Amino acid sequence: MSQPLGRPREGRVDQAVAAAARALLAEQGYAQLTVDAVATRAGVGKAAIYRRYATKQEMIFAAVMHDLELTAPPDTGSLAGDLAAVTRDIVANLATPPPGVIPGLLADVHADGALAARFATGFVTAERTCITEILDRAVTRGELPRRPDPAVAHALLLGPVFAWLFLLMENRDTLPALAETVAATVAQALRDAEPP
Amino acid sequence: MSQPLGRPREGRVDQAVAAAARALLAEQGYAQLTVDAVATRAGVGKAAIYRRYATKQEMIFAAVMHDLELTAPPDTGSLAGDLAAVTRDIVANLATPPPGVIPGLLADVHADGALAARFATGFVTAERTCITEILDRAVTRGELPRRPDPAVAHALLLGPVFAWLFLLMENRDTLPALAETVAATVAQALRDAEPP
Repeated sequence: MSQPLGRPREGRVDQAVAAAARALLAEQGYAQLTVDAVATRAGVGKAAIYRRYATKQEMIFAAVMHDLELTAPPDTGSLAGDLAAVTRDIVANLATPPPGVIPGLLADVHADGALAARFATGFVTAERTCITEILDRAVTRGELPRRPDPAVAHALLLGPVFAWLFLLMENRDTLPALAETVAATVAQALRDAEPP
Repeated sequence: MSQPLGRPREGRVDQAVAAAARALLAEQGYAQLTVDAVATRAGVGKAAIYRRYATKQEMIFAAVMHDLELTAPPDTGSLAGDLAAVTRDIVANLATPPPGVIPGLLADVHADGALAARFATGFVTAERTCITEILDRAVTRGELPRRPDPAVAHALLLGPVFAWLFLLMENRDTLPALAETVAATVAQALRDAEPP
């Protein structure tokens, strides 16, 4: 059976565009990035990019967001351990893109309904699924009598990490210590809310 | 004694520009706002705006950020009460500007060193001062043996509110309940960390 014509080459173009976008984001920052520069770096025509993405924002979103989608960490045997693991994953996620990229993406998400929908079904849903699974494990273990609201747990875990990096611009070296405090605080709060 | 010439009129221009910027942000959103539109709405020339602000971003920043600077709430008599009050103030702050304005400002803060410096010395310092005062009151009352790190308390209070509104885009109607949970969780965590 013959390969569908053009497929491998199209895949290579996708990868080249994403790699060029990530490299230029690191070198130039979010606001300065242009489709022209990405096309030149990737060795493709601008038309090839605009066939894939309606806007510069969609191109950047595709290049960066995929890396930000969490998967649930292995079961550590306790709610506190699982929350510590997922909080470390959240930290790794948010601290990896070049400075300014996540705030830039977030502004575009709020300015563009199509990006907002992808952000909700990608980033937010992936994290929410992990957190829900961790809460369900705790219920199964008997650590919690029932599942707390995953949205609240999500805000309590993600929010302080985001604030440390992008609102308060605190020292990144102390981010691991912050993550430990956040996870321990949330584990205790969930146990206190409804003692088994 | 005569008034300094021109002062009142200059002050009126400042106010007209800020009011026009806020009105257009509410009508059109952050990304669409132009200095031209603000000048027209305010009834001033573009030159008058550019004499005040080097960029569109600085103009918006000045129009919005002043409203986001907290002052410490009155002493409620307890750490839990004070944290609940300041968290309500943080919610009011972040929920007031039109949707998209805070994420847009934040992206610009990360793209522009001068805005970043003003953000740090305005918004961040004002909130940090309030939180530090609240922690000091708790020490004075004997609720805490010593002052915990205000940066960590700040991230734990501000982060979940920001996440609820701008990352998770959860229901704004449940924001007061989230704020209560956040404040109670942080109060308990601070007391647990170092029992008196």
